[in-house]
Amino acid sequence: MTDAKPDEKAGRRPRGTVTVATIARLAGVSSPTVSKVLNGRSGIAVDTRERVEALLREHGYRRTDNTSATPIVEVAFSGLESHLAIEIMRGVEEVVRDRGLTVGFTDLQGRAPRAGRRTADLLLSRRPTGVIAVHSAYRGTYYQQLTASGVPLVVLDPTGEPVHDTPSVGTTNWSGGIAAARHLLDLGHRRIGVITGPPGFMCVRARLEAARAALETAGLTLDPALVRSGAFSFDDGLELGRQLLGLPKRPTAVLCGNDLQAFGVYEAARRAGLRIPDELSVVGFDDIEPARWCGPPLTTVRQPFAGMGNAAAQMVLALAAGQPVEPARVELVTSLVVRDSTAPPPA
Amino acid sequence: MTDAKPDEKAGRRPRGTVTVATIARLAGVSSPTVSKVLNGRSGIAVDTRERVEALLREHGYRRTDNTSATPIVEVAFSGLESHLAIEIMRGVEEVVRDRGLTVGFTDLQGRAPRAGRRTADLLLSRRPTGVIAVHSAYRGTYYQQLTASGVPLVVLDPTGEPVHDTPSVGTTNWSGGIAAARHLLDLGHRRIGVITGPPGFMCVRARLEAARAALETAGLTLDPALVRSGAFSFDDGLELGRQLLGLPKRPTAVLCGNDLQAFGVYEAARRAGLRIPDELSVVGFDDIEPARWCGPPLTTVRQPFAGMGNAAAQMVLALAAGQPVEPARVELVTSLVVRDSTAPPPA
Repeated sequence: MTDAKPDEKAGRRPRGTVTVATIARLAGVSSPTVSKVLNGRSGIAVDTRERVEALLREHGYRRTDNTSATPIVEVAFSGLESHLAIEIMRGVEEVVRDRGLTVGFTDLQGRAPRAGRRTADLLLSRRPTGVIAVHSAYRGTYYQQLTASGVPLVVLDPTGEPVHDTPSVGTTNWSGGIAAARHLLDLGHRRIGVITGPPGFMCVRARLEAARAALETAGLTLDPALVRSGAFSFDDGLELGRQLLGLPKRPTAVLCGNDLQAFGVYEAARRAGLRIPDELSVVGFDDIEPARWCGPPLTTVRQPFAGMGNAAAQMVLALAAGQPVEPARVELVTSLVVRDSTAPPPA
Repeated sequence: MTDAKPDEKAGRRPRGTVTVATIARLAGVSSPTVSKVLNGRSGIAVDTRERVEALLREHGYRRTDNTSATPIVEVAFSGLESHLAIEIMRGVEEVVRDRGLTVGFTDLQGRAPRAGRRTADLLLSRRPTGVIAVHSAYRGTYYQQLTASGVPLVVLDPTGEPVHDTPSVGTTNWSGGIAAARHLLDLGHRRIGVITGPPGFMCVRARLEAARAALETAGLTLDPALVRSGAFSFDDGLELGRQLLGLPKRPTAVLCGNDLQAFGVYEAARRAGLRIPDELSVVGFDDIEPARWCGPPLTTVRQPFAGMGNAAAQMVLALAAGQPVEPARVELVTSLVVRDSTAPPPA
């Protein structure tokens, strides 16, 4: 995955023990240049920088001078999860505050395409004790640069994307999908529609395949005509809901990829003059705060965001203290919260 | 407001120029003891500490050693504004990030009664460059301790409580209240109900009195039977909405104290079988994100939370740089956002 050729001898060192001097030698630069890359300083040619970063990643460079780090745990969002952010921040803060550390907030929303590097530079120049990157934020240049820096890093991952080279916290999407589908089956639904998020996300696959498995083990099949995919947004929930409710044989219930999509289906039902839950059952995923406010209160699968923040904070502080993080992947359980948006299908 | 007796000579110094040594002399303690109080250190008797803090506040102590502060602007919430928090944090971050500072997050939600002091101790011990306290968080022990510490402090205040001794950012609640009421009057409503927040908040008074003024200048009166007050919550909106909609002569429109109350009224209307906007118009206040998702999308008065965070950050950085902040109170404009929850009254 890199075009740099590692020195054979250095390659035999265990991961995480390579030094700045070794990286400098391999890259053909001075040690201060490597330090500049690690600390987000400017004034280094892009190709030099990328060569150094590739070597740092390849050799699994880790910081050994964490005692001089600033007492901050930075939480980085990508802007897509703003409706989840406060619960996550609270979970992180609960663990971090009593150690005398600050919980830092960074959001990549609305940044220019090259802003990832600038944001990562700024973040690294603050020399944080650790970084918690919330899913989409961990992709691309930004993430590459963070992993290269050797700063203690944990991915908090509501999208179910296991990251094998970085410790991460997720939830049990599959079990949540099963619970949601079984709830509808138990109520007597047989024509169940599914609105999913973008198929590139593993959580989307897990929830969709769980719904299929629940139906098939109940002796039914998931009708492909009743499956729609779109963004994790209100707008796509509205449009895809409109499509499903406009079918000649419309579903009596819809499993949604997240709560925002479910709110969109609510609006599609309202426009179509269909009452929830009497004429249509709707199930969300996430259990964000507005799920309790919508009319009627939404049945949904709860992801424990505060607990995820809590777990991620414990992991990142352990990494910062030089302790091993085992297991490196944690999945917290989801739970079905039954409210008023689900009922038996109309007779 | 304090039982300490200030030295006459020290009392003649302009506010903000008193030294640690002077405070120590007035309090009858050593300078290191005053420094401990300023930096949230433990091991000082409560009465000594309170005496020192009272003197610091009285003399308007300000830090002069801000160059040694940690590059963090801390944003402190009280837990009541979690649905507003991310937009505020983004606004703060936009200003702060390019200066190389971290945006810190603290939430007092769910803390024990004495936790305010512990939280303030932790916050001060981090020696932040500045603190932005979001309204309710600025009350009580916590706020007293922050003002005593001399740390650059700005109050971000969505509740319209002007604070005369601390720079603050609010919004034009009165104008927002006028715009909301006039919108309903223009649609032809004459029986207008009002659900307000807790009457102790100035924003609540401003919005209620604005509604009354709009009605009276239109030749109408605000019927006291149609006014209800409660917490800024979904639950209180639901209960107070239920009361208003159960009246023999129910209102054709309801002005709500915030969006959460409006969502409660939506649910009360749904349970009463009343369609919005055909049979009932509803107006919120705040324009939080779920306002676009509820069925139907909510007409509401927008408070520019990101702009407030932006303004508060600029003020706190100016204070930290030793620059004067004039004016010390900023009010950003509110604006009516007309969506689908308002229509002419039923014929």
